[in-house]
Amino acid sequence: MQDNIRVERPSFVTHLECSMTGETYAADQLHQLSRVGRPLLVRYDLAGAGAALTRDALAARPTDLWRWRELLPVRRAGNIVSLGEIETPLIAIPKSGGPGAIVKDEGRLPTGSFKARGLVMAVSMARELGVTRIAMPTNGNAGAALAAYAARCGIETVILCPEETPEVNVREIAAQGARVYRVNGQIDECGAIVGRGAAEGRWFDFSTLKEPYRIEGKKTMGLELAAQCGWELPDAIFYPTGGGTGLIGMWKAFDELERLGWIGSKRPRMYAVQASGCAPIVRAYEAGEEHAERWENAATVAAGIRVPRAVGDFLILRAVRESGGRALAVGDPAILQAVDACARKDGLLLCPEGGATLAAYHQAMRDGLVDPEERTVLFNCATGLKYPLPEAGAWLDKDAVGDLGAL
Amino acid sequence: MQDNIRVERPSFVTHLECSMTGETYAADQLHQLSRVGRPLLVRYDLAGAGAALTRDALAARPTDLWRWRELLPVRRAGNIVSLGEIETPLIAIPKSGGPGAIVKDEGRLPTGSFKARGLVMAVSMARELGVTRIAMPTNGNAGAALAAYAARCGIETVILCPEETPEVNVREIAAQGARVYRVNGQIDECGAIVGRGAAEGRWFDFSTLKEPYRIEGKKTMGLELAAQCGWELPDAIFYPTGGGTGLIGMWKAFDELERLGWIGSKRPRMYAVQASGCAPIVRAYEAGEEHAERWENAATVAAGIRVPRAVGDFLILRAVRESGGRALAVGDPAILQAVDACARKDGLLLCPEGGATLAAYHQAMRDGLVDPEERTVLFNCATGLKYPLPEAGAWLDKDAVGDLGAL
Repeated sequence: MQDNIRVERPSFVTHLECSMTGETYAADQLHQLSRVGRPLLVRYDLAGAGAALTRDALAARPTDLWRWRELLPVRRAGNIVSLGEIETPLIAIPKSGGPGAIVKDEGRLPTGSFKARGLVMAVSMARELGVTRIAMPTNGNAGAALAAYAARCGIETVILCPEETPEVNVREIAAQGARVYRVNGQIDECGAIVGRGAAEGRWFDFSTLKEPYRIEGKKTMGLELAAQCGWELPDAIFYPTGGGTGLIGMWKAFDELERLGWIGSKRPRMYAVQASGCAPIVRAYEAGEEHAERWENAATVAAGIRVPRAVGDFLILRAVRESGGRALAVGDPAILQAVDACARKDGLLLCPEGGATLAAYHQAMRDGLVDPEERTVLFNCATGLKYPLPEAGAWLDKDAVGDLGAL
Repeated sequence: MQDNIRVERPSFVTHLECSMTGETYAADQLHQLSRVGRPLLVRYDLAGAGAALTRDALAARPTDLWRWRELLPVRRAGNIVSLGEIETPLIAIPKSGGPGAIVKDEGRLPTGSFKARGLVMAVSMARELGVTRIAMPTNGNAGAALAAYAARCGIETVILCPEETPEVNVREIAAQGARVYRVNGQIDECGAIVGRGAAEGRWFDFSTLKEPYRIEGKKTMGLELAAQCGWELPDAIFYPTGGGTGLIGMWKAFDELERLGWIGSKRPRMYAVQASGCAPIVRAYEAGEEHAERWENAATVAAGIRVPRAVGDFLILRAVRESGGRALAVGDPAILQAVDACARKDGLLLCPEGGATLAAYHQAMRDGLVDPEERTVLFNCATGLKYPLPEAGAWLDKDAVGDLGAL
């Protein structure tokens, strides 16, 4: 098998376009938001890509993220900054989920989270386009992924974390060579500082959807899922939704795969899962709005989805509605119960955001939205090992263990 | 592609034999150590396996651990207890290692460590052979893997940890449904309690090498590495050595692959890496002994290799010597420096035991044992996220950020 990150293969990228107005922008250039302040989407010559790459040729490649090169923006193999972006496994959770429940375990990616998908693409493009200094606001995992990939290729990084960012994230960001700060505010307030610095020319702004290539990395979740499911998409997807890049990316992936003729028109119902303590997308979904207002006093144990305002709100809502899915909120107690049940019964330790999808899945089954037999994929976006677990372990004196029957 | 864990495929296991005397034991039965108190090795009809499975047929299967079914002891697919045992990636570390250094990142396996390989096999066999209660001593990661797989298939577990076991391990073991205790002693003292309970019929003893199937799981490290390297083994392997199951398993894998005709007679030089504070194998290697005496007052930051006495000592020493390798000890400061350098320069956060292999690699280059251009594989046995990282993250007041130039 050929090594996907060393072989030169053509990218079929043609241009970028504004997700709101459709206005076009040139490929192979640095971009932030469009002129109207909305995310840019990368477009490809899919006819050309389909002629260059067949599903059989794809099946002969190693299964990592870089097998999709024709559908990704990086032009030269030498710019790929890889830490081993493996295909993440699908794991049944029959006891804590049910007969149809499958977890896609994104915690197996570099730095232990799905943020690696977006950041490996964005950093590789930054390298290709000559960026030397990057700043980003993060609830934790995105910052860890950015720090690792940037360190690897010598790009300097400044990372701003809200005060409630998990401790492990702040520390791993620093260990991986970034300058990291804790800010007394939420992620959008950290983002405002990053934006100010970018305007002053101090760094390139890597905020969610403010540069166009992270979404292309996250898109590979959808491409990979389609290939793993034998080009027959699942019935439903539960996705923990903060900035929503992954949900938007998967929706884009399915569209590109249909244009390639590799899948049909069937789509999974997309369920955007938020925490009750920070649910701007759910509120907008229920009110029938196209955009979501900022959620004040956001608070949840699931830090990754504590995002009061998402710049891609309308894209999330559009995908959820077009798919026949829904936006759902679950409370912290249900999230923690789901994490506990999945570990104890099925041996799989989810992150809190992954626990949120399992809690929302049960809620959706109770409400008749999902049938237990339907093939349903829950995204576990990070390894559960990053998060505090309850104290455990009674003491035993080796010299005084008499009756082993007590053990 | 067919799913490796659902398709029925024949196992070519024929019998087991004592690693010391060669005395044979029946397959498909529960076993502990041999009559002379040494590990049992599983033997296969390799001619039959080679006729049933070609390298091309293997290449068409998904790349997870279960693709090697013909060379593994589990008979029925229904007994496989899987949590997604993916092929672990090979990652270059040019800045902190050098041009020839490649890390095999075992931290991507279920429960975040290579212990998953051994335990998924041992638990699947325990299920196949009707075991309902298991006990094990562990420095942490093995216990976490056992707890997860046993929880998944409903086997009860009792796990004993030395007092210096990393906190995260004790907690994840409990979260994954096991009964876990902390003992005021080393792992062999925990093992003595487990052994006493097994003798009383309270549980089945899962101590390293005391049941014969963990080594078959660890063997897949060698099988996988050979396939990933295009059936041309690397020049050298640095392996963090506590109980040594993986080193013994890889050596066994290479032997089986040569008998299959899939590799030639070339072997990597095997470097068994220990910590200066617990180096019984290094001491025995240097003294020319066949067995290693217990190391008193063992102490090192790398808990996974804090194993004062290994029941497979002679097998480790035999493989190291036959390969032309060596046993090497490195101090805790060098271990921590290696972890720091690899994260900061190459963006890869190693566990302390993985850091020990990088430190030993540099020591071996300084001593002229390894050439920097030689293809050398360092085993990172667990995700670095399980271990405490230094404090980081200066505070920044969002309302008082004036001069961004300071960032």
